[in-house]
Amino acid sequence: MKKTARNLIIAIDAMGGDHGPNVVVKGAMEAAREFGIIPILIGRFLDISPEVRKFGLKPEFYQALPDDPWEKYDGSWIPVLQTDQMVEMKEHPRDTIRKKPASTIALGLKMVKKGEAAAFVSAGNTGAIMVNASYYLRRIEGIERPALGIVLPTKTGRVVVLDIGANSDCKPEYLVQFGFMGSCYAKLLGSANPRVGLLNIGEEETKGNQLTLSAYPLFGEQRSLGKINFVGNVEGKDITAGLADVVVCDGFVGNVLIKSAEGTAKYLQEIIKEELTANWLRMIVNLPALLQLRRVKKRLDYAEWGGSPLLGIDGVCIVAHGRSSPKAIRNAIRVAKEVVEQDLVQMIQREVEKDFSACR
Amino acid sequence: MKKTARNLIIAIDAMGGDHGPNVVVKGAMEAAREFGIIPILIGRFLDISPEVRKFGLKPEFYQALPDDPWEKYDGSWIPVLQTDQMVEMKEHPRDTIRKKPASTIALGLKMVKKGEAAAFVSAGNTGAIMVNASYYLRRIEGIERPALGIVLPTKTGRVVVLDIGANSDCKPEYLVQFGFMGSCYAKLLGSANPRVGLLNIGEEETKGNQLTLSAYPLFGEQRSLGKINFVGNVEGKDITAGLADVVVCDGFVGNVLIKSAEGTAKYLQEIIKEELTANWLRMIVNLPALLQLRRVKKRLDYAEWGGSPLLGIDGVCIVAHGRSSPKAIRNAIRVAKEVVEQDLVQMIQREVEKDFSACR
Repeated sequence: MKKTARNLIIAIDAMGGDHGPNVVVKGAMEAAREFGIIPILIGRFLDISPEVRKFGLKPEFYQALPDDPWEKYDGSWIPVLQTDQMVEMKEHPRDTIRKKPASTIALGLKMVKKGEAAAFVSAGNTGAIMVNASYYLRRIEGIERPALGIVLPTKTGRVVVLDIGANSDCKPEYLVQFGFMGSCYAKLLGSANPRVGLLNIGEEETKGNQLTLSAYPLFGEQRSLGKINFVGNVEGKDITAGLADVVVCDGFVGNVLIKSAEGTAKYLQEIIKEELTANWLRMIVNLPALLQLRRVKKRLDYAEWGGSPLLGIDGVCIVAHGRSSPKAIRNAIRVAKEVVEQDLVQMIQREVEKDFSACR
Repeated sequence: MKKTARNLIIAIDAMGGDHGPNVVVKGAMEAAREFGIIPILIGRFLDISPEVRKFGLKPEFYQALPDDPWEKYDGSWIPVLQTDQMVEMKEHPRDTIRKKPASTIALGLKMVKKGEAAAFVSAGNTGAIMVNASYYLRRIEGIERPALGIVLPTKTGRVVVLDIGANSDCKPEYLVQFGFMGSCYAKLLGSANPRVGLLNIGEEETKGNQLTLSAYPLFGEQRSLGKINFVGNVEGKDITAGLADVVVCDGFVGNVLIKSAEGTAKYLQEIIKEELTANWLRMIVNLPALLQLRRVKKRLDYAEWGGSPLLGIDGVCIVAHGRSSPKAIRNAIRVAKEVVEQDLVQMIQREVEKDFSACR
């Protein structure tokens, strides 16, 4: 995790996501201004440079980064690392290592590896980011699969949910490792002794699919060893209720979970608006409420939470939603900055080393 | 599916669910009054009878039902089929067949089998209901696993989601069969050519876990045969958006999905109320909005949707939520009545026979 004397340098996949460079560049420019980071944009210079110019800044073309390009950095220009290689959304993750060694994803991760950037942020193909991150940055010793974590609001505070999409099929041991890494993240967020729950379809130990039925006793072992504060099974409805500080699931289930929560929240907001504005009279009497509901929207906005750190790899890599808005990109960069400053990677490394049995 | 000349007879597991007889009996009494069905309550007479008396009705003790107890039925009494055997929530489903042949669940299903009741409704152990239903009522020829379907509201209409909890681990062929049965259900609900989507973590064919990756081409085959109107992968957020009339998933994922949607909706309603009533002034100006939000609550209330038919077995069996309120029980009985009257079981049977290849 290198920093310049002045600012954190963050490598950004300018081509990632469904909306391409204009959205990513806008988010990156906002983040640079607000959080004082230096963004390095990676991708096709011809596509990126007009977007940078919209902000009155000069895009600076690089084929490779010189040893210390930051000596002359004064905020008036933005470094762009040129590459034409991009990973498509529908590309098979594993193939990308061999076929696209100079993709925006590969270049960004290599920068983190070499210490040229403190973190890498991408809204691209999640599977490819994970495979490339495991390849270029390596996994933390003792962790078999990296996981994507997300921080969600609850009635009483916050909850870390993982994995939300890095591993579609999991072994029971992976879930225990996710619980361990999630605990580390939750500690950074302020829980002294994070309660870890296993996402399941019933509270009883006998409920579940093969994966959760096998994982339950493994979590029980870690609890009795004092390594994980396992509180048993939690159900979908318990997450927002705040019954756990960390909720563990496989990446398929976690991804469905957060996307359905997103859909439900959107649907609910729409029908509320519909009820409150059904006619002119209603619209007038409900005006104060409608204005206040904007605040609710902000509290729930997916984009506000921005990005998910890929936990378990030796470096900071943040995955943003594929349909990210500029605001989501900006917030993913904020998450990157926080994770770097709080030394999450080192913390996981230390804890795994100390409590190694928890992960095997 | 037997009916008396006058009323539909519905067998009800009076002991099922987390709240026991008082909740179930209340829901059953409301349903009897509103929908004109005759409820047969199954369970411990001593626990059930005081609850029935609260409604000014006489509980009538039966050890076994006589050939036609309904000749003398005048609405002033409620038949109670006595049994002390109950399936606990944490009991292993498969064991219950051998260990509890006279459980409330087994007795109710046997009544449906013998034609003594048109349907069975239970808020008990979902796994046990499924295993017992497969055993006593048998599966429809061509269907390997029954599935629980639920009808949810969307922006543009309704969607059938299945499986929501009968099968925690599925083979790809099961999902295709679910799609087929879900289509039948959606047709009854008014879709002429129901769009069937596979719940997944991306729109691309290459996204998913082993299960969905294997199921996708099977659905594609059925589409090219004209048997299933497969519209590809759908994501969690697409469900409420109305992008499909039927959404197929394994029972673990489906269960997490609906419970998280339930939790999200509840959470959202709470924070909206919080914002609108933060102080006296706000409470007063927002009064009209708060009153109208009650309507939204009703539109979203899980209990309003009541129960899920167990699709794929040869008889009507409705599973209600374990935490069912009296209203949810009442509505599960309403679903039972609708499914009986619309001959859903026969329809699935006919369609499977006609398009048999779709299910193998």
